[in-house]
Amino acid sequence: MNKGFKKTYCALVRRLEESSRLGGVMGILHWDQEVIMPAGASESRAQQIGALAGVLHEKTTHPEMGKLLDELFAADENKFTAPEWCNIREARREFHIATRVPKVLVTELAELSSRSHQIWVKARSENKFSDFVPALKKLVDLKIKWAGYVFPDMQPYDANIDIYERGTTQRDITPIFDKLKAELIPLIKAIQSSDYKPDVSFLSGQFPIEKQEALGRRIGEDMGFLFNHGRMDVSTHPFCGGSHPTDVRITTRYRTDNFLESLYAVIHETGHGLYEQGRMQNGRDLPVSEALTMAIHESQSLFWERMIAQGKPFCARYLPLLAETFPRNLKDVTPAQFYEAVNVSGPSLIRVGADEVTYPLHVLLRYELEKGLFDGSIRVEHLPEMWNAKMKEYLGVEPPTDTLGVLQDTHWSGGAFGYFPSYTLGAIYASQFYQALLRAKPGVEKQIAAGNMAPVREWLGVQIHQRGRLLSVPDLVERVTGEKLNPDNFLDYLKNKYRQIYQLD
Amino acid sequence: MNKGFKKTYCALVRRLEESSRLGGVMGILHWDQEVIMPAGASESRAQQIGALAGVLHEKTTHPEMGKLLDELFAADENKFTAPEWCNIREARREFHIATRVPKVLVTELAELSSRSHQIWVKARSENKFSDFVPALKKLVDLKIKWAGYVFPDMQPYDANIDIYERGTTQRDITPIFDKLKAELIPLIKAIQSSDYKPDVSFLSGQFPIEKQEALGRRIGEDMGFLFNHGRMDVSTHPFCGGSHPTDVRITTRYRTDNFLESLYAVIHETGHGLYEQGRMQNGRDLPVSEALTMAIHESQSLFWERMIAQGKPFCARYLPLLAETFPRNLKDVTPAQFYEAVNVSGPSLIRVGADEVTYPLHVLLRYELEKGLFDGSIRVEHLPEMWNAKMKEYLGVEPPTDTLGVLQDTHWSGGAFGYFPSYTLGAIYASQFYQALLRAKPGVEKQIAAGNMAPVREWLGVQIHQRGRLLSVPDLVERVTGEKLNPDNFLDYLKNKYRQIYQLD
Repeated sequence: MNKGFKKTYCALVRRLEESSRLGGVMGILHWDQEVIMPAGASESRAQQIGALAGVLHEKTTHPEMGKLLDELFAADENKFTAPEWCNIREARREFHIATRVPKVLVTELAELSSRSHQIWVKARSENKFSDFVPALKKLVDLKIKWAGYVFPDMQPYDANIDIYERGTTQRDITPIFDKLKAELIPLIKAIQSSDYKPDVSFLSGQFPIEKQEALGRRIGEDMGFLFNHGRMDVSTHPFCGGSHPTDVRITTRYRTDNFLESLYAVIHETGHGLYEQGRMQNGRDLPVSEALTMAIHESQSLFWERMIAQGKPFCARYLPLLAETFPRNLKDVTPAQFYEAVNVSGPSLIRVGADEVTYPLHVLLRYELEKGLFDGSIRVEHLPEMWNAKMKEYLGVEPPTDTLGVLQDTHWSGGAFGYFPSYTLGAIYASQFYQALLRAKPGVEKQIAAGNMAPVREWLGVQIHQRGRLLSVPDLVERVTGEKLNPDNFLDYLKNKYRQIYQLD
Repeated sequence: MNKGFKKTYCALVRRLEESSRLGGVMGILHWDQEVIMPAGASESRAQQIGALAGVLHEKTTHPEMGKLLDELFAADENKFTAPEWCNIREARREFHIATRVPKVLVTELAELSSRSHQIWVKARSENKFSDFVPALKKLVDLKIKWAGYVFPDMQPYDANIDIYERGTTQRDITPIFDKLKAELIPLIKAIQSSDYKPDVSFLSGQFPIEKQEALGRRIGEDMGFLFNHGRMDVSTHPFCGGSHPTDVRITTRYRTDNFLESLYAVIHETGHGLYEQGRMQNGRDLPVSEALTMAIHESQSLFWERMIAQGKPFCARYLPLLAETFPRNLKDVTPAQFYEAVNVSGPSLIRVGADEVTYPLHVLLRYELEKGLFDGSIRVEHLPEMWNAKMKEYLGVEPPTDTLGVLQDTHWSGGAFGYFPSYTLGAIYASQFYQALLRAKPGVEKQIAAGNMAPVREWLGVQIHQRGRLLSVPDLVERVTGEKLNPDNFLDYLKNKYRQIYQLD
């Protein structure tokens, strides 16, 4: 770094580290709230989170921050190392997002999101979409207004996507999603019409929670999750949280009549957790080391859940352990049977439980509706009708109620428009990364089959985790895979895999 | 409130509530660190705590806070309600304590405390007091300097005591501790020389942790602890923490060969917890509702642990439940035998495990040494020698090592001088409060014996918990008991009880 800017840059670093640490504190508050907090403390916790959010906002938007950033940004990029410039760039983006919106709109959005969430909870439980309409309309309006302040050069929906998936716009997403639609709808229909149905009977039974927990912990350890730098607990919805790369906390939930759901939740969240634990050693309290985008984060969880744990080598490796744990159900099952059972595919009403073939259609339905809401071509009142028609068209099923349809997801009630595409972009990246891994380490599936997953984790570490935010998503994907975002790989993977399982040829 | 000050007072309240909520967040960080944090996260947690402490300091010392307080304090007290004036008074005290000390001294103290703690841990484990000498000397020097800034009109040791026990000085404590010494040393000797030794053999055995936990939970519930507004967990040292009166968290620790230790730790911490859960309904995020002092807090834990749970009615009530839980050990034990066994007394080297007769001597030994360190009559180098001589004189035992002597407590290593007296002041208040309860509710021991502890909790609630910081300690004690701090009651209680148990007459 040029010496003239050293003092200024150091002052920026101190501020960024402080914010990062306070952000870690916020992580603990959220984890605690979901996992361990007494039920009667929800009101006081909301106020604590509010107070800390206020402090974080003050820190992010501090005038001194603006001054430091102006000064540093006026310099030439080549006066800084890449990590330094990344921190400056990221801090500037945060500063702009936080300061460009008038305070009155920030407050209005915060209050409306919080209120809308309550309204949505009630509307969903009572199956009354009409009760949710006014709040949802207002949220879309405010988010369009918000977009005009934050990224005035972007289309409003692109601005909303940018918060989760910077640098990716509808122009990138729409053709890819159209292709997925064109190819997956016939595949789903073919799977549905197949006479062959994998045997899943052995997945039902009684599975004691202690045994499920021990299993999840063992497989998490094999994947390389460091329990010395993390925890595994129980919450209503599985998630990966925590406060720092040395304090990464995943959760799962247990059902005594199904062990697969919990186990694959553990593997999915461990995939997120490995990304966090694997962040670069320098700058762990700075933006440069942070996870890149939501889709890249999701690519890591899906990589482990779908590419590894639903693959043949993994199934072959872990069936004996599973059979030892649950002999009554699994002792006579073959690896091939187990592989087919964990890859069963079929249309369903609810996104969160969907399999890898049908999941993208849940996402692109939501993407199309959000796009329409933001460009004015779809009215909030028409959402249930359009939702149900698309479900029928894409998946061949129709929700009997809005609770099982348009009201199922929490995202919109909190104003999180533009988030859904990340799930499917993540699935596509995961499949591209897996092909790249096979090219880089041709023997890796044998190693997985032998229970050695260290090469996988190390490759992901070097290729993705340790790169933090140094590269943009397109640059990262190109560096790792040799090509840009490309759904062909993902489609080939799905078609080959499911044609084989469902004997479609 | 006079309308002219309304706006100013409301601005103060908003700031105090923010600080209180951030203080609650700090409570969660500490609890998490002691109970649940992965071991490898200690460094990042220290930095998170540091960042939040910095924010709290900024908030407490904000110039706007000073302006508001000056304006409000310039007004006449009678323009405000008692709770309002209490908040102003408390905020002003905090502001002064935080702003009167030069920043360089604050930093020096913080760094030295942190460093000294490490040094002490090592010195204790290696039994090398000499390694701790330079840090301890420096700490005393800095704390004397600190006292000169914060409370320039007080003696330095009084200023240190005032942080924990405001309004109580050596002039109050010394004659009381001298009286305790004069009367307890002969009592301890008499107990030692008694031929009668209560049977404690049935307290040893094997006690599964799940059963101990269920027992603690049941008794905590009977005492009135709201698990909807609290938790009970495990940590190395039992404590009561949390983030709010609706989120009060107690901990205990379990030994499989002893259930009594854990059970009485639960009762002790639940006593602290009931104080927090019982705070006044209005102003729960303001100083007025907070616990008054350390000694009053300790009076609540000791009230339940010593006055209630080591008393005859409680022992009679809960022996059947204990015998049902641990029949092998307790099925043939009588209430009288159990009562004697839980009240066994004898000198020991370590303060934290001491019984109610010998505990005060551990405290007054430390008090005398601290007094001497601060008035210059005792040199740090001479502490081990003086410690051992006093142990011999007061308790008839001599530590074979400094690890079991002068190095046993963590307090000094963190610069917490003046804290120890609170333990024994708390014991005296607990005994005074118990006598007041018996006068106010003559039938209460019958109710305890019938398992109805609600009248006890309600009386403590009205008399102490809900009064928050409205009264000073002397005023509170006088209001509740009709007299000031008075050790006679405590001494009579100990003498009567232990003369009976040890058949000294």
